[in-house]
Amino acid sequence: MKRDLASSTRVLRGAPRAGAHGAGTLLLSRSDVERLLTPDECIAAVEDAFRQHALGKAPPPGILGFHAEEGSFHIKAALLTLDQPYFAAKTNANFPQNGARHGLPTIQGVVVLCEAITGAPLAVMDSMAITALRTAAATAVAARYLARENCHTALICGCGGQAPAQLRALLRVRSPRRVYFYDQDRAKAQSFAAALGTEIGLPMEPVADLAQAVAASDIVITCTTARRYFIERGMVRPGTFVAGVGADNENKQELDPLLLAHGKLVTDLTDQCCAIGDLHHAVDAKVMSREDVHAELGEIIAGRKPGRASDEEIIVFDSSGTALQDVAAAVAVYRRALADGEGTRFSLNA
Amino acid sequence: MKRDLASSTRVLRGAPRAGAHGAGTLLLSRSDVERLLTPDECIAAVEDAFRQHALGKAPPPGILGFHAEEGSFHIKAALLTLDQPYFAAKTNANFPQNGARHGLPTIQGVVVLCEAITGAPLAVMDSMAITALRTAAATAVAARYLARENCHTALICGCGGQAPAQLRALLRVRSPRRVYFYDQDRAKAQSFAAALGTEIGLPMEPVADLAQAVAASDIVITCTTARRYFIERGMVRPGTFVAGVGADNENKQELDPLLLAHGKLVTDLTDQCCAIGDLHHAVDAKVMSREDVHAELGEIIAGRKPGRASDEEIIVFDSSGTALQDVAAAVAVYRRALADGEGTRFSLNA
Repeated sequence: MKRDLASSTRVLRGAPRAGAHGAGTLLLSRSDVERLLTPDECIAAVEDAFRQHALGKAPPPGILGFHAEEGSFHIKAALLTLDQPYFAAKTNANFPQNGARHGLPTIQGVVVLCEAITGAPLAVMDSMAITALRTAAATAVAARYLARENCHTALICGCGGQAPAQLRALLRVRSPRRVYFYDQDRAKAQSFAAALGTEIGLPMEPVADLAQAVAASDIVITCTTARRYFIERGMVRPGTFVAGVGADNENKQELDPLLLAHGKLVTDLTDQCCAIGDLHHAVDAKVMSREDVHAELGEIIAGRKPGRASDEEIIVFDSSGTALQDVAAAVAVYRRALADGEGTRFSLNA
Repeated sequence: MKRDLASSTRVLRGAPRAGAHGAGTLLLSRSDVERLLTPDECIAAVEDAFRQHALGKAPPPGILGFHAEEGSFHIKAALLTLDQPYFAAKTNANFPQNGARHGLPTIQGVVVLCEAITGAPLAVMDSMAITALRTAAATAVAARYLARENCHTALICGCGGQAPAQLRALLRVRSPRRVYFYDQDRAKAQSFAAALGTEIGLPMEPVADLAQAVAASDIVITCTTARRYFIERGMVRPGTFVAGVGADNENKQELDPLLLAHGKLVTDLTDQCCAIGDLHHAVDAKVMSREDVHAELGEIIAGRKPGRASDEEIIVFDSSGTALQDVAAAVAVYRRALADGEGTRFSLNA
């Protein structure tokens, strides 16, 4: 006999439980996660995760990748000790033709969250909102430590699914008076600027001239699928904070190797950026080595390395996306769901 | 509001659906999997997975491992193309103190099964029965190709959770007239022999003298948590098939390196056995190299390498446990659940 939850909502009304022990695994759908995970909580969780890593309390996270015919799968997993130890494994499928061929999102996936005292699976949740918010949160944390206080203008390159999360998170830590949007598809930039302008109530401007927009911006965020860099060193004026967010596999690139080599480079995880981030291309191009990396973000958060030293520095954040962020965000969602009595219980081990 | 499935069974009675598209992800609990996955279907699925791998249709699977304070997590993941491509990622927690301290099983975990055309998550299922049955299925497949036809006696070393599955699967491919059980805890071997004797209706004998039992057995299966080998080369008589099942991380060992070096050695995956199987210790002991491995199991199934050449050969199967088996077993469970209209639907992406 089939039990079907898809066509039902909230059939059973159990009282919220205090803990997870013996209560089954908590299921959280995409809309559950979107509702439960606020940018502020996600930023705080991600900042703390990077700090714990820098303090040696979170071992290096791991990645596995697999190529299918039409796309790829990757797994990102990490342990993170907060008040108690947690482990999360995120399985994401990345199938670029999904939209055109199947009317499905490019990226679909699942996060499995376990406590790391007995290993019990606490929660299974959709990965989409986790991925978007934890990625945006890393940019926001980096901007908090590395962007100038007085940033008046921000540019977002790439008006896909990641862009709104990036902007919303950035606005929690900096207050630009004007935001530019750039996309190869100009209509996309226009509709984004219109939609987010209405939502956020700031002047939003779609731009056609990339070089001009970069030169006019205090903060530049790239979140594209580019496979060849488009932000050139010569475009970026002194004092700018640049966050390269798109490069999350070895074939993707957004930032001029010379920009990385001549700016102050901060990574999320240097090992990982050497393998799949923009840093990887800069090292390949022999314009810098991994020893030229100024710091990992966690080292700056933990006070072990200095952040911005002057208003003139160009600082680049190479964001390759780490499982530390996933576990931090998943724990934040899980705790919020417990506190609010949200989610669906399923006894996986019954 | 909290929806609670733990305290309910089969609240909603939806008609079985033909496919998974848009129908939500199928949730399968431990008892669902136990009910749906038969040894015969699992053996067939695992045999086919090894064959596909040998034919180059399944890329090498991947592993990630993480050490927590009281235990460890590992992730095993693989792509497998059957009539359509599938991907599965299994997250298993291994916490040896769980029983004594928390009344929980040592191993708990979750399998996420996706189709690999769009990457959609088809199913989330408990891993315990999958792990037990797919491990036993590999032993059975290996025995089918590598044990003598006329095996009269079998010995199972280690009377933990894996032992019954090993015996049940073995009996699908060979017909011993007597089965011996050995465990360091003699009472355990006694109660196992009694319980399985009643279930299976064969003479089952707990043994105290390991060397004598090995010397009297045509098939020897080790499924223990040993960290130092206990099956010595000198114990094993000509013609025996030995399956070393316990060693699934680099600290575990069951079989004398000299037994591997002087027998005909077949692995599930040679790369993986060089890292975490009994082979790893034999190579470390410098009594053999990876070039001395006779074949991977899939090569024998696919007819690319010969199996047993004589009734006198000692053949050793080094079973480190592969994600190929997990994805094969998960697909078999999923298909059976669809056919039978079993499981619980949850719209993860809603």
